[in-house]
Amino acid sequence: MKKRYAAALLGTVALDRAREEALYRQLYFAIRDAILQGRLRPGTRLPSTRSLAADLDVSRNTVVIAFDQLLAEGYVEGRTGAGTYVSATLPEELLSARPGQAGPRDGAAPAQDRLSARGRFLAGIRSHGFAQPLPFSPALPELARFPFDEWARLLARHWRYPKQEFLVGGDAAGYAPLRAAIAAYLGAARAVRCDPEQVLIVSGAQQALDLATRVLIDPGDAVWIEDPGYAGIRGALAASGASLVPVPLDAEGIDVAAGRRRAPQARLAIVTPSHQYPLGVTMPLTRRLELLDWARGAGAVIIEDDYDSEYRYAGRPLAALQGLDGDGRVIYIGTFSKVMFPGLRLGYLVAPKDLVEAFRGLRQLVDSHPSSVAQAALADFISEGYLAAHVRRMRALYAKRQAAMVAELRKRLDGRLSVSPDESGMHLIGYLDDAVDDVALSKAAADRGVVVAALSRLYIDVPPRKGLMLGYAGVAEPTMRRAVATLAGAFDAFFAGGMDPREAPRMALGQGRSGA
Amino acid sequence: MKKRYAAALLGTVALDRAREEALYRQLYFAIRDAILQGRLRPGTRLPSTRSLAADLDVSRNTVVIAFDQLLAEGYVEGRTGAGTYVSATLPEELLSARPGQAGPRDGAAPAQDRLSARGRFLAGIRSHGFAQPLPFSPALPELARFPFDEWARLLARHWRYPKQEFLVGGDAAGYAPLRAAIAAYLGAARAVRCDPEQVLIVSGAQQALDLATRVLIDPGDAVWIEDPGYAGIRGALAASGASLVPVPLDAEGIDVAAGRRRAPQARLAIVTPSHQYPLGVTMPLTRRLELLDWARGAGAVIIEDDYDSEYRYAGRPLAALQGLDGDGRVIYIGTFSKVMFPGLRLGYLVAPKDLVEAFRGLRQLVDSHPSSVAQAALADFISEGYLAAHVRRMRALYAKRQAAMVAELRKRLDGRLSVSPDESGMHLIGYLDDAVDDVALSKAAADRGVVVAALSRLYIDVPPRKGLMLGYAGVAEPTMRRAVATLAGAFDAFFAGGMDPREAPRMALGQGRSGA
Repeated sequence: MKKRYAAALLGTVALDRAREEALYRQLYFAIRDAILQGRLRPGTRLPSTRSLAADLDVSRNTVVIAFDQLLAEGYVEGRTGAGTYVSATLPEELLSARPGQAGPRDGAAPAQDRLSARGRFLAGIRSHGFAQPLPFSPALPELARFPFDEWARLLARHWRYPKQEFLVGGDAAGYAPLRAAIAAYLGAARAVRCDPEQVLIVSGAQQALDLATRVLIDPGDAVWIEDPGYAGIRGALAASGASLVPVPLDAEGIDVAAGRRRAPQARLAIVTPSHQYPLGVTMPLTRRLELLDWARGAGAVIIEDDYDSEYRYAGRPLAALQGLDGDGRVIYIGTFSKVMFPGLRLGYLVAPKDLVEAFRGLRQLVDSHPSSVAQAALADFISEGYLAAHVRRMRALYAKRQAAMVAELRKRLDGRLSVSPDESGMHLIGYLDDAVDDVALSKAAADRGVVVAALSRLYIDVPPRKGLMLGYAGVAEPTMRRAVATLAGAFDAFFAGGMDPREAPRMALGQGRSGA
Repeated sequence: MKKRYAAALLGTVALDRAREEALYRQLYFAIRDAILQGRLRPGTRLPSTRSLAADLDVSRNTVVIAFDQLLAEGYVEGRTGAGTYVSATLPEELLSARPGQAGPRDGAAPAQDRLSARGRFLAGIRSHGFAQPLPFSPALPELARFPFDEWARLLARHWRYPKQEFLVGGDAAGYAPLRAAIAAYLGAARAVRCDPEQVLIVSGAQQALDLATRVLIDPGDAVWIEDPGYAGIRGALAASGASLVPVPLDAEGIDVAAGRRRAPQARLAIVTPSHQYPLGVTMPLTRRLELLDWARGAGAVIIEDDYDSEYRYAGRPLAALQGLDGDGRVIYIGTFSKVMFPGLRLGYLVAPKDLVEAFRGLRQLVDSHPSSVAQAALADFISEGYLAAHVRRMRALYAKRQAAMVAELRKRLDGRLSVSPDESGMHLIGYLDDAVDDVALSKAAADRGVVVAALSRLYIDVPPRKGLMLGYAGVAEPTMRRAVATLAGAFDAFFAGGMDPREAPRMALGQGRSGA
């Protein structure tokens, strides 16, 4: 009876010749599922391959291959001269996993049960897929003018006869000639003082922050961050269990005295001294020395995030904080995302000599080593002068774009949005009256396809100033003019719609409306 | 007097016209260092640009540019009509950083003071730079036969007209067409059941392990690992603060009963069920069900590291454990390092649907998103059939190489090293007598350029078996024969040198030597 049941069950398996999956695999999965779901019990005899092939109208070979696979994996067993049986040794109480046809069931167990505390935090992060570049994304460089033909040529040069070093695992710290090229470049362009062996190649500023916080921070350690500051820093620190200490800014950048009051013994301070993100303050020498002095006294480390210092439009670039450090307390990080393009995924971290081994060790555990050929092409791109030439061209272009945007914004939004030119960077802040809800206004603009992030979102403890972040580097002038017009339209609608708190009280007074 | 002192000091600055560094920069650094080191005190008047230029025999413009830079950075200040002075506002007590000429001083503060507990652990990790591929590195595939011309052509296809998506930041989970190609590939080749959105592109198995442990593990959580097992797993777990629970193996793989006794409530088990690393055991169905049953009861997750399952030489590949999971408890990870080449840095992680967001969130914080063009080329490489063809060719090649190596080892080292063929994988284990010091023997072989890792090093708690890891996939037959001869020479020298503990007692008996 058991045998006839199995024949009846398996004789009706639906095999679909139109599917790409081979028939033997379809049959294998059908029988496997029947066993795992308890429809074919341990000890059940399967029909002969010949009769099952006839029932299913497939070649006998198809059935033989499916049975072989089931046999190899232990679902069935052959008894010499006596046919094929569902393995008697399968403990029935274990056969409860019952995979559905479509893979793991959703929500079988709530995700929180399986996640760590950190994992639960992470699951709540808004992660984004690919986003169409839109005006005025603050970190977007001009992509159309990048010399992709040169870049492709340099890549092809290394792919044509790839060095064994590119194919086998490379150095966890990066490709030596690239490290040398970056050390020379940073020395010349940023007055960073380092040997090539202090340079680690990373996938970008985000990985540099992640590595640095893991190397330097134990859960609960206090870390100074700028308030307002870059949101990606907060995320990286939260993932490492750091205790965030938002430190307010003044006209000279991070307020070291305030930091000393809040957390004198912090382990780490993360700063953007060349061009504070987002406010654009440049930290003067005295404040730099004051910060280094604190770090020396507290035994702390400073991360200098030099995210856009290549773009300085007036005067020469200021030297990096790192070059002032005589005590191995500054980690300098930067990225090629902004001087080349974000999809490149290459950046660097310059560590004090005696911390290099810890970084290299972590990098090795975290993702072994960086990909190789792109590093070799980048080393050539730098040392053959393409990078410097591209930066020079982009510097001239961005200066023009900034001036054009300031003029256009002043023409269209004068009195509602206050913008001033900046000597460096890739974005400006358009300040709003502090009564304006910049988050709602940013949303209204986004609905029209204009990305102007709300400044207040970048504040943590400090009472936020209201404003909009306006990236201009990646926006050609005609597009910029259209985008400013669209933004002006969003302003009109936003304020006309009574959503402006500056308007609301007046309307309430005049019309007896209750306050919002 | 001060002015004359400054003129005397600066008039002797050594400017080197032979150096690549511009003269104005050399002068700028010389004056800056003099200020920072206290040789030029706040308030000191600098010589005029004209007289300093004459003293140094440089153009006046060189001095003007250097002074401008010092002025911009706040080291000096100009008094109208009265010359240039070292800034009076520089607080002297802060001028103690004193950067030396050659960058941060080494060992200014002991590294441990600045490192986290994790960082101190990391600093102790033996990290390696690029290593020449040598016989018999266990993870090394054949590189010379990889179709680099096709690969370069696919890359060039995407670089020629790069999609905006490749240049701007991409999806943190990876390039959608690659995720789809991998889901289809894993379904067909490994009976992994997943939708493309469950696939995350990572830089390799190491990053997959790092992400998974951070998403799933809080410091102190217990994690089952195989004993013996892959050392990279231990490193990744230690970096996440996990409490390692080494679980012994039996003939069916990880001993679930032993695991239940040691840490029934572990949060995670990391296993290699297709081909246990390093011993090569294949986990049978009953043990797989038993492991899943434990995970379900304990609320734990299983990581299936399927590191070399493409290379099965007899029978069809066994289905992955992941396909048996009906409960969202298995994370499946794999890499293209072994089927393509390690320098590629691309792998994948298949997560249960409801854990995908946590992984994507962490990936975004950790390094934003994977590099793009290589992902696009890989998607084509898979979907246009190049990968399957390459794996097929390599499978035939590696089977031949394994057989040749077994024959050669048996010819040369019979009785001293015991090897058996294996139906799958890229390495074999040559077992030694348990009295032999395999670490010392491995070192003796390494001195002769043959990399045979000591098996005992991969054990944690279990009394280790002694043996040598013999990777054969990347070793052409003539090289292999030479390497086996070299290895045999190392054996001869090792045992003749009295370093063999099996010999030592005999010698001690005969010659009255005291025991080692």
